[in-house]
Amino acid sequence: MSALSPGNAAKIIAAKVNEDRLWRRLMELGRIGATANGGVCRLALTAEEIEARHLLIGWARDIGLSVTMDDISNLFFRLDGTDPDAPPVVTGSHIDSQPTGGKFDGAFGVVAGFEALEAIRESGVTPARSMEVVAWMNEEGSRFSPGMMGSEAFTGRRPLKQILAVKDADGVRTAEALETTLAAFPELERRAFGFPMTAFLEAHIEQGPVLEEVGTPVGVVTGIQGSRRFRVSVTGDEGHAGTLPMPERKDALLAALEMIGTMRRAFDVDQIKFTVGLFRLSPNVPSVVPSKAFFSIDIRHPDWKTLRDLGDSVAGLCEQNAGPCAVEVSEIATSESLEFPIEIRECIAEVADELGIANEPILSMAGHDARQLHYHCPTGMIFSPCEKGISHNEAENCNPSDLAAGTRVLAATIAKLAD
Amino acid sequence: MSALSPGNAAKIIAAKVNEDRLWRRLMELGRIGATANGGVCRLALTAEEIEARHLLIGWARDIGLSVTMDDISNLFFRLDGTDPDAPPVVTGSHIDSQPTGGKFDGAFGVVAGFEALEAIRESGVTPARSMEVVAWMNEEGSRFSPGMMGSEAFTGRRPLKQILAVKDADGVRTAEALETTLAAFPELERRAFGFPMTAFLEAHIEQGPVLEEVGTPVGVVTGIQGSRRFRVSVTGDEGHAGTLPMPERKDALLAALEMIGTMRRAFDVDQIKFTVGLFRLSPNVPSVVPSKAFFSIDIRHPDWKTLRDLGDSVAGLCEQNAGPCAVEVSEIATSESLEFPIEIRECIAEVADELGIANEPILSMAGHDARQLHYHCPTGMIFSPCEKGISHNEAENCNPSDLAAGTRVLAATIAKLAD
Repeated sequence: MSALSPGNAAKIIAAKVNEDRLWRRLMELGRIGATANGGVCRLALTAEEIEARHLLIGWARDIGLSVTMDDISNLFFRLDGTDPDAPPVVTGSHIDSQPTGGKFDGAFGVVAGFEALEAIRESGVTPARSMEVVAWMNEEGSRFSPGMMGSEAFTGRRPLKQILAVKDADGVRTAEALETTLAAFPELERRAFGFPMTAFLEAHIEQGPVLEEVGTPVGVVTGIQGSRRFRVSVTGDEGHAGTLPMPERKDALLAALEMIGTMRRAFDVDQIKFTVGLFRLSPNVPSVVPSKAFFSIDIRHPDWKTLRDLGDSVAGLCEQNAGPCAVEVSEIATSESLEFPIEIRECIAEVADELGIANEPILSMAGHDARQLHYHCPTGMIFSPCEKGISHNEAENCNPSDLAAGTRVLAATIAKLAD
Repeated sequence: MSALSPGNAAKIIAAKVNEDRLWRRLMELGRIGATANGGVCRLALTAEEIEARHLLIGWARDIGLSVTMDDISNLFFRLDGTDPDAPPVVTGSHIDSQPTGGKFDGAFGVVAGFEALEAIRESGVTPARSMEVVAWMNEEGSRFSPGMMGSEAFTGRRPLKQILAVKDADGVRTAEALETTLAAFPELERRAFGFPMTAFLEAHIEQGPVLEEVGTPVGVVTGIQGSRRFRVSVTGDEGHAGTLPMPERKDALLAALEMIGTMRRAFDVDQIKFTVGLFRLSPNVPSVVPSKAFFSIDIRHPDWKTLRDLGDSVAGLCEQNAGPCAVEVSEIATSESLEFPIEIRECIAEVADELGIANEPILSMAGHDARQLHYHCPTGMIFSPCEKGISHNEAENCNPSDLAAGTRVLAATIAKLAD
């Protein structure tokens, strides 16, 4: 890192982080799939997401980053170090959103990565290791569920075959949608899965209220709260709403509600998060007793033992409350609570301290691609405050200076790890 | 009723009911508006329905019935009794159909009325009171909604002005279409609304499976089950399933579940039918706390007081269980439960017993013109089995001998009430 002392390098790089440019890029990306209520609908592997990929590639050309893509359509943007054979330091997040998502979830981590690499280039500092920004495919899992497909395929944490077979609500397989996305970028060199990394850093909005409440612009993420996700399928029988007596009914809705109500009461422990976000009924007409219900369960808790025990009781509670209906419960994703390595956390905190940016440790309540990368290389996360903790919501909002502070810490940490 | 004993009169009249003639007239009427799939499309106040009216008038001329029409185009066909000033006994139903209706719904009640009066005439029995067949205008409400316009206008249960202002899908008002129908029959004497009746009897297919299942050809209808239909809209707030603490959530699904669960328990009374057949969640993705729930409530009960009280508590129960969410409840349809007078029901059952025709009491789960006439004069209904309970369907079908049995009971009951 030339003759500059590490402390000076951090400050020089941080000074090159341009708050206006960062915000302008965020707003530019936010216009792709923009909703009437100020949010974003940019589902994975859709035309909107392809448009967003073109935007990123345009930025990369402007900055002078080389672009590659792997077989699951993760996009990589590289700034070469002096030793091209050394494993790169990688940062990034995702550009897909929820159907009624905000402009910052995921997008910030990718845009911050571009800003960090541009700042490093402008600083004149050239570390030994190359540095890359990645946009992981389908973190949200709104169209093709569950999400984190890109980071799971890259790290081999989920079999590619299984990922490709997932269907969306219209019956389209991930494999088909992926083909369209891959075909839109024929000029890109194809990258191998699982290439070695020196470290992975993900900048992200907190998606919770803590940092805003304590007035700290940078959160050094200690780990990720675990989660268990289930799908429950209840099968009853159709009947005429006017003629079929109640005792003879096999009402899938009432059975499902009994299950959900029982779990809600049974899972009422401190710090639990219990969410049924997806619920579908069939045939779903007012005058017919419903024959089928299908719903999701998402349980999260910082303590893995608590989460494990509660999750293990899901199938039993559903069966006990199915009444006259049949029920099938499947667990589609299990994520243990994890702790990022202390070396990375200390590195981030030290850089922030050098830059005079207030920071504090924080646990991530949400899952992120960093969860998968944690099992691949030394990994860490940097959180920025978001307004009132609102996320997965069109009203999601952030303070530009907070995002710039997080990006400064990100840029200087990348340079330090790449040195 | 001359010198014949009542029992003998019933048998003599019943013997004159001609199964072939009844079926031939049903098939003849069924050709007007016939569909390719064996059903009927004969919407109220259309050219097809005018053609059907001409057919009925032709039959009346053949039998020797006098024809009158009122201002809403209900058609009346009269066989005089010995006392022309006594209020008549009236029977009938409707000749309009659903767009994909069958040949029996409504049509059977009108054709059976013609057959009954012809049988009475042929029997040589001349009761004191006159007897009439009526074809009520627009029972189905498919073109101009809601239906039962003819019987509601006649009984004054809905203001005529309100009925005339109803528009069809093309913006044509009932008043305009009615003018065309009235103008097609300039020769007919105009009848007053609401003239006194000794009794009203409606023969109809069951539109349910009960009579066919138990193998009984005649159902003596005890009453009509009422119904109240609601739509409930719950509004909470979106949030991240992993980060938003439970106490801060406005989860529309959990609020809706609390409402439905509470109603289910509160409405657990004998004979209740409580159905939530439609349920929609928004944004309906697994990792987002749902912000909106929309569901239907359909409550039915044979006893109107019970149904009224339960229905009146819906809005309150929803509001009390909305938790942190907002809720809007609207009632979209209300039909009172009613019980036909025991004298009419006993009269029908006694006649059937005299004729040796198996019969049993049955509650009507669907609404009929008899619902309106019930508030005008002593009213009853006679049900005939229909194949597999299928109705409002082009596949609607009946057994000719079952329809003849019902018509025999109808004819003898008319004569008895007119005596």
